[in-house]
Amino acid sequence: MALHIDILTLFPRMLDGFLAESILGKALDRGLLTVKVHDLRDWTTDKHNTADDRPFGGGAGMVLKPEPVFAAIEQLQRPGCRRIYLTPDGVPFSTQRAESLSHEQHLILLSGHYEGIDQRIRDCVIDEEISIGDYVLTNGTVAAAIVIDALSRFIPGTLGEEKSLTHESFTNKLLDFPQYTRPAEFRGMSVPEVLLSGNHVEIEKWRQARRLEKTRQIRPDLLE
Amino acid sequence: MALHIDILTLFPRMLDGFLAESILGKALDRGLLTVKVHDLRDWTTDKHNTADDRPFGGGAGMVLKPEPVFAAIEQLQRPGCRRIYLTPDGVPFSTQRAESLSHEQHLILLSGHYEGIDQRIRDCVIDEEISIGDYVLTNGTVAAAIVIDALSRFIPGTLGEEKSLTHESFTNKLLDFPQYTRPAEFRGMSVPEVLLSGNHVEIEKWRQARRLEKTRQIRPDLLE
Repeated sequence: MALHIDILTLFPRMLDGFLAESILGKALDRGLLTVKVHDLRDWTTDKHNTADDRPFGGGAGMVLKPEPVFAAIEQLQRPGCRRIYLTPDGVPFSTQRAESLSHEQHLILLSGHYEGIDQRIRDCVIDEEISIGDYVLTNGTVAAAIVIDALSRFIPGTLGEEKSLTHESFTNKLLDFPQYTRPAEFRGMSVPEVLLSGNHVEIEKWRQARRLEKTRQIRPDLLE
Repeated sequence: MALHIDILTLFPRMLDGFLAESILGKALDRGLLTVKVHDLRDWTTDKHNTADDRPFGGGAGMVLKPEPVFAAIEQLQRPGCRRIYLTPDGVPFSTQRAESLSHEQHLILLSGHYEGIDQRIRDCVIDEEISIGDYVLTNGTVAAAIVIDALSRFIPGTLGEEKSLTHESFTNKLLDFPQYTRPAEFRGMSVPEVLLSGNHVEIEKWRQARRLEKTRQIRPDLLE
């Protein structure tokens, strides 16, 4: 059965273009995975649709209230479902996690105020907290898009034959090698000769050397 | 003058919802920054609007061609402009970089095929390469959205009084403390008493201890 993803957000229209276009849009059209965006305010019960409130103990920022989130997750979750909260203080997201999530049956992605939700939500109805990077967003909705985009690449059929997972950044923990396409000469700049040689052993050697060189220069942490 | 951002992408509609909604949508409405999305194919010159081609030296994946990108950037760039390419082998993005980018006058964000663009583009018309995290996307357009969202928080007026930069993840390189809001008791779970005490010295102590505890547990790398 295809992976189903429910997104819970205060800004349900934010992902309209993202879900309609590009490779992901095509994968959704073909039913390779399904995504449904839900407005958290649908689970509020007061006439003002209040989903957040001021934090206990003081401080700026509004905090997502527990009631609508508990109600939403309890209604949406199915057996075997994985409930994920997108937050800058979660575990860093990675290609490896994208791949393993692509094998799940049902995900709920909670995109609350990126600055804080009531801790009881995190304690009771969240299985996993993911951070897409060391920066803060206005809210977690685009972070949910990142997770969906990255995992969709591992769902068979999503990438057509024009794309591939075989050569890319983070394969063997190295950054990618430089790419060149036509024209072979552009504004006086030529493609490295080895790439035109047809000698695949030499090409592979050159590419591997460039990957190591670039990783050493930009991301020595990946080599530790 | 307000920051202006040009986005170059093969999927210009992907950001429709993102730019219309939420805090960023409001900031754009108020002219606190301006964003324009451009279709890279507008700078192609053949009748098929070819923007990519197979890589020299073989391998899967299509590579963004140099001609349309050079033409687009040369037309759009203004003096003092910063030209950024979103790529998984760039320098990791951070809250610090988001803040410094918010002080620029003009940014061009190039969202090519996330798996590769012609190296001559990177050598000649790109000033900086940014990675939003150690994972690969179907294309860089959502990565551009992340950069814009994160930097917009540092543009004065974007965050209303309901939000604040003072308490949040990565302040002093620590993750955030747990937040609680009403109701004080929910399904038998109470808010920690100290937060209801009104004693701001004790509250600050408790929060700082929780931040350290959480950072040690989830992101010991931030404490090194």
